[in-house]
Amino acid sequence: MLRASTTQTVKSGNKIGQMSLLLRKQFESIISLTDQEFDYILTHFSAKKLKKNSYLLEAGQHNVSKFFVNKGILKSYYIDKSGKEHILQFAEPDWWITDYKAFFNETEATIYVDCITDCELLSITKENLEKLARKFHKLEHFFRIKSNAGYVASQERILSMLKLTATERFDHFLDQYPNFMQKIPKYLIASYIGVSREMLSRMTKNVTNRTQ
Amino acid sequence: MLRASTTQTVKSGNKIGQMSLLLRKQFESIISLTDQEFDYILTHFSAKKLKKNSYLLEAGQHNVSKFFVNKGILKSYYIDKSGKEHILQFAEPDWWITDYKAFFNETEATIYVDCITDCELLSITKENLEKLARKFHKLEHFFRIKSNAGYVASQERILSMLKLTATERFDHFLDQYPNFMQKIPKYLIASYIGVSREMLSRMTKNVTNRTQ
Repeated sequence: MLRASTTQTVKSGNKIGQMSLLLRKQFESIISLTDQEFDYILTHFSAKKLKKNSYLLEAGQHNVSKFFVNKGILKSYYIDKSGKEHILQFAEPDWWITDYKAFFNETEATIYVDCITDCELLSITKENLEKLARKFHKLEHFFRIKSNAGYVASQERILSMLKLTATERFDHFLDQYPNFMQKIPKYLIASYIGVSREMLSRMTKNVTNRTQ
Repeated sequence: MLRASTTQTVKSGNKIGQMSLLLRKQFESIISLTDQEFDYILTHFSAKKLKKNSYLLEAGQHNVSKFFVNKGILKSYYIDKSGKEHILQFAEPDWWITDYKAFFNETEATIYVDCITDCELLSITKENLEKLARKFHKLEHFFRIKSNAGYVASQERILSMLKLTATERFDHFLDQYPNFMQKIPKYLIASYIGVSREMLSRMTKNVTNRTQ
């Protein structure tokens, strides 16, 4: 596994400003913010640019931050004792990603997060997120709504793992990540769904036939 | 399946008061409340008593509320096309339970919630929860923290389903629900872990041997 450490922290305020349009749009889909409020909020984030295949987070790491994806695609995954990767989540622009257990409980990370493509991210520490939520009731609301949505998505994933056939899990994946088939390697999709690459290849052909 | 409708709504304010000690304790593990604030909050809850095997929530139901467990044990589950039950969650006193997707998105329920034992519950509608969260910043905080915890627990369940062997899933179940082995039928535990009853019986003996 390539664990290149090519994180580049973007320090210039202007560059963070350019990377923050999507974040502001997401905030404003739930709450309203003045320019002044948003500028203040943004001072609590750091911008990061990472190259394809570099890592954002590793098992064993402390002081885990939460990351908003501005550009690129990432995966979070667990590595079991035999070295096998189990994919927990993908993230694309406008999504958040981290080791949620480590972030919320302020414990050591147990999962990995890697960049599948070149990525631009805005990161916030637990301390800064809690500070902003304390200062602005509406940000407390925003983060509650996002947490609810994450919780619901996780429950849906559990149900899909419990109840669905491989073909149904593939359909569920296409619903959840409609643009991913063209963007990420097929073996990652096969791993997420829990099928072999050959099985995924057959299912992909069936979907193409169904939609023609 | 027994779908007895034996819900009893408790209307007397005094009785709700007697049933609310655990709820107040949970609020105060995260935020502080005056008596007056708690009394006001409590007017937004209804108390329910249900008999063993009766249902609290059914697939297809609208206007789904969220339930705080004061007494008893419940299970939430999905029924697939072949009629097979897939257990999503158990809940015991001091836990919350509902169809979270239906509750947060105000859509039709797709899962069931049944009482495994006689139960006492405090229910709150989506409208009342949002009203309280808008009125009290600290309640917005409380519900965000609870939602984060639920999200983390769901992510842990996904990881346990992806990475663990049956024995490890059983150990994980014992960690998550330490008092349940004596309290609920073994076939429900087997269903939650995803093993046969015979396999569960063997694993139970192994645990007994390990702890002797």
